[in-house]
Amino acid sequence: LSRLPLVEGVLKYIKEKNILFCMPGHKGGLGFLKTTQGVELYKNLIKGDITEVDGVDNLHFAGGIIKESQQLLSEYYGSIKSYFLVNGSTSGNLAMIFSAFNEGDKIIVERNCHRSIFNAIIMRKLKPVYIKNKIHSKYDAPFPLDKEHFLYLIKENRDAKGIIVTYPNYYGICFDLQYVIELARNYGMLVLVDAAHGAHFGASKLLPENPLKLGANMVVMSAHKTLPSLTQTAFLHVGEGIDINKVDFYVSAFLSTSPSYMFLCSMDYARFYIEEYGEKDYDELIKICAVNRKRINSLGKFYVLGPEDLRETLGNQDEDNNMYTMDLTRYILNVPKGYSGHKLLQYLRVNKIQAEMSDSRNVVLIFSPFDSSQAFNALYIALKKCDMKTLEQEYVDLMDYDMPTTIMYPYEVMDREKTIMELRQAEHKISAAAIVPYPPGIPIIMPGERIEKKTIAIIEYYLRNNVTVFGINQGKIETVEK
Amino acid sequence: LSRLPLVEGVLKYIKEKNILFCMPGHKGGLGFLKTTQGVELYKNLIKGDITEVDGVDNLHFAGGIIKESQQLLSEYYGSIKSYFLVNGSTSGNLAMIFSAFNEGDKIIVERNCHRSIFNAIIMRKLKPVYIKNKIHSKYDAPFPLDKEHFLYLIKENRDAKGIIVTYPNYYGICFDLQYVIELARNYGMLVLVDAAHGAHFGASKLLPENPLKLGANMVVMSAHKTLPSLTQTAFLHVGEGIDINKVDFYVSAFLSTSPSYMFLCSMDYARFYIEEYGEKDYDELIKICAVNRKRINSLGKFYVLGPEDLRETLGNQDEDNNMYTMDLTRYILNVPKGYSGHKLLQYLRVNKIQAEMSDSRNVVLIFSPFDSSQAFNALYIALKKCDMKTLEQEYVDLMDYDMPTTIMYPYEVMDREKTIMELRQAEHKISAAAIVPYPPGIPIIMPGERIEKKTIAIIEYYLRNNVTVFGINQGKIETVEK
Repeated sequence: LSRLPLVEGVLKYIKEKNILFCMPGHKGGLGFLKTTQGVELYKNLIKGDITEVDGVDNLHFAGGIIKESQQLLSEYYGSIKSYFLVNGSTSGNLAMIFSAFNEGDKIIVERNCHRSIFNAIIMRKLKPVYIKNKIHSKYDAPFPLDKEHFLYLIKENRDAKGIIVTYPNYYGICFDLQYVIELARNYGMLVLVDAAHGAHFGASKLLPENPLKLGANMVVMSAHKTLPSLTQTAFLHVGEGIDINKVDFYVSAFLSTSPSYMFLCSMDYARFYIEEYGEKDYDELIKICAVNRKRINSLGKFYVLGPEDLRETLGNQDEDNNMYTMDLTRYILNVPKGYSGHKLLQYLRVNKIQAEMSDSRNVVLIFSPFDSSQAFNALYIALKKCDMKTLEQEYVDLMDYDMPTTIMYPYEVMDREKTIMELRQAEHKISAAAIVPYPPGIPIIMPGERIEKKTIAIIEYYLRNNVTVFGINQGKIETVEK
Repeated sequence: LSRLPLVEGVLKYIKEKNILFCMPGHKGGLGFLKTTQGVELYKNLIKGDITEVDGVDNLHFAGGIIKESQQLLSEYYGSIKSYFLVNGSTSGNLAMIFSAFNEGDKIIVERNCHRSIFNAIIMRKLKPVYIKNKIHSKYDAPFPLDKEHFLYLIKENRDAKGIIVTYPNYYGICFDLQYVIELARNYGMLVLVDAAHGAHFGASKLLPENPLKLGANMVVMSAHKTLPSLTQTAFLHVGEGIDINKVDFYVSAFLSTSPSYMFLCSMDYARFYIEEYGEKDYDELIKICAVNRKRINSLGKFYVLGPEDLRETLGNQDEDNNMYTMDLTRYILNVPKGYSGHKLLQYLRVNKIQAEMSDSRNVVLIFSPFDSSQAFNALYIALKKCDMKTLEQEYVDLMDYDMPTTIMYPYEVMDREKTIMELRQAEHKISAAAIVPYPPGIPIIMPGERIEKKTIAIIEYYLRNNVTVFGINQGKIETVEK
């Protein structure tokens, strides 16, 4: 039996020496080695794991180098105030929601929001109304919000205090945020943006716009997902219309009072990097991505989605299809119907390419300026030699999924007595848990919603495909009574 | 103007090459270099900054190497379940309090609890009753709870759901936890322990006992403060009488869904280290500490407190004085009245010795098995050659401090309109903020308490001594009306 299972498991994985088309954005350290300043940081990283002493400031009472660095961050992104977060976008989402809303507030929230948003909704005792998400009918890729449903909801819920949207989603797809913000402003609602995957947005004209430039009231960005920063680092940006004192309190409450200086330094570096090199490096990366997309698509086996696919039919609402843009620094690598995205991810891993995540029909790959052309070529070769037979999988249609009916608010479920039962026996019961396949981290059912036949089928589908499903334990689900 | 203020500031500090008698416990990486397994981890640390991929498990859905490592942690400390925390003891205190108590619950809490405990009390809407803390009259060092007051409170508040205690405090002083737990059990109250500074307790017979062995219901420990683990890492241990499902939810809610594997690996390593080497290494360290204490005390200039001082008069209640024990791996280095602990800390820093923290009369130094005898000798030499004249400071008596009167509960203050005013003009007003000098991180006044003349004097004292005081901005304080 191993006495150091975690250390040994991670060292074993490191020794595989995979090409990292996944998070974090520094790609095994390469992002630090790109500049002389980064090399110095890289070499001294563990020595930089210090505690608050004279001269290095205090994150919870910033008045020196941390304050200075946060001001540079704020200036670069164009916020009123920006914060370094050492507990990931999770802590940003908590602080954002606790600061902007009060108990009992109604909010409009995208169904596909991150689990941390929903946890905040529960703990802040909010009353959520969910905007439907679309799924691209041809590629089975989840898209951001359904415009028609969004318009309907905002008109029907004028008492809502604000809207929470994900921009972009895990696949890099963005809904037209400017449209959302203008509409919300007309209704006097705040717009909070979970831009966990968009810290690089705005760096190049070829990328979607930085949400702060579009007038978002609060924005959370993961630093590590796309920028050269250590995993678990994030930024919170505050725009207009927000009480900064409340933000100060909640940011401080949700962050360790022993923050990692390794994290803080890497966030300082990430902002420095994107500011100094972002435009040139991202323009270049996007060119490389486009060239390799063409090569991969020419194989005729897989299909990497492009901007033109965003304007294709998404359902019945053709006129809505100019509402989407995409992050050209990630691939949605689609497999034809009858093949498995999950199996493709596994195939790539065996071929020493680590993709970010998969769903039934797609593999998502995240690129950064630190990926070499050799790495892109290795991807091309692996895909070229892939035997499609090994990826075969019975096709399951994802399109019929509707939101279950809400019976009670998520926070009301928290204190009720729970009954654990077999998933199959739970039809018509009320779910006590959020059931979330991860990735992509989107809830199938939320606490307080009624479990329907379809709900059970979707959960079983993910389980069968070996996706980690939060909220299900050994095939059982927690339920409550009304 | 620096474009990388944080990185440059930290690198500058590293280049000072100070002896680290402070956190973190790995002492600039030495703790990893002590074993062959640690060296391997040290060398691969940044490469180990990976995301969740096949084979390395998922912290929020542990079923592989993380689960295995957490089980080893649980076995070592003797818990029912133990959790790795990547957001420090702060997240542990939040999760512990949210899991154990419900909104509106009355709790008994030590006045000297950590800021994160108080933030949790506010956010969980608890009704706190505070136990007074003692201050050692001869050395002006804060001691844990006042037994007489504790006995009075527990009898007067039989409806309280539980007790939260700090064990040990920042100075390494412990109140008799077994006594607290037995008494609480008789009253049907839970005992939650913030053992942030006690992750090494129980490793040697010369150290205070591990709180789980004494029957605590929940315990939070910082891994990094005393063990070889990276800053911001901590453990949460669950004992009897706690709903594990609730703990699972809140731990997950307060932790990043992109947890750092560098952190996770270092916690695996810290547990491995203390289990394999703890007893021998701590026995040895305590011997070295004792020898050097004697040498330092023989100088006749400073005084390092020892176990015999715990039994000296602490006030009027002589019979209570066998209630205290201390961590023999840290020094409370006392200066005589008329001299400044703060100035001594600064003097040591100039002499390339980084102490952990200071108050008006004391400097606290934290040792670990990775501190060399040369390092201890450097401390002795620095103290020997110290010119006492440079440490002179007018003596201010800390003994007269009483708790201000509670006018409303801390959470009730949150949504009231705040008025910012000069500290001096705030007499008789209700404080809207927790005013906390940091270190030592103990609140002078809590939200909802009445600001008294004495309160103002103490705050001004800390400000004058250049201690960071949370809650005061440019001499101003936030107040609310009843």
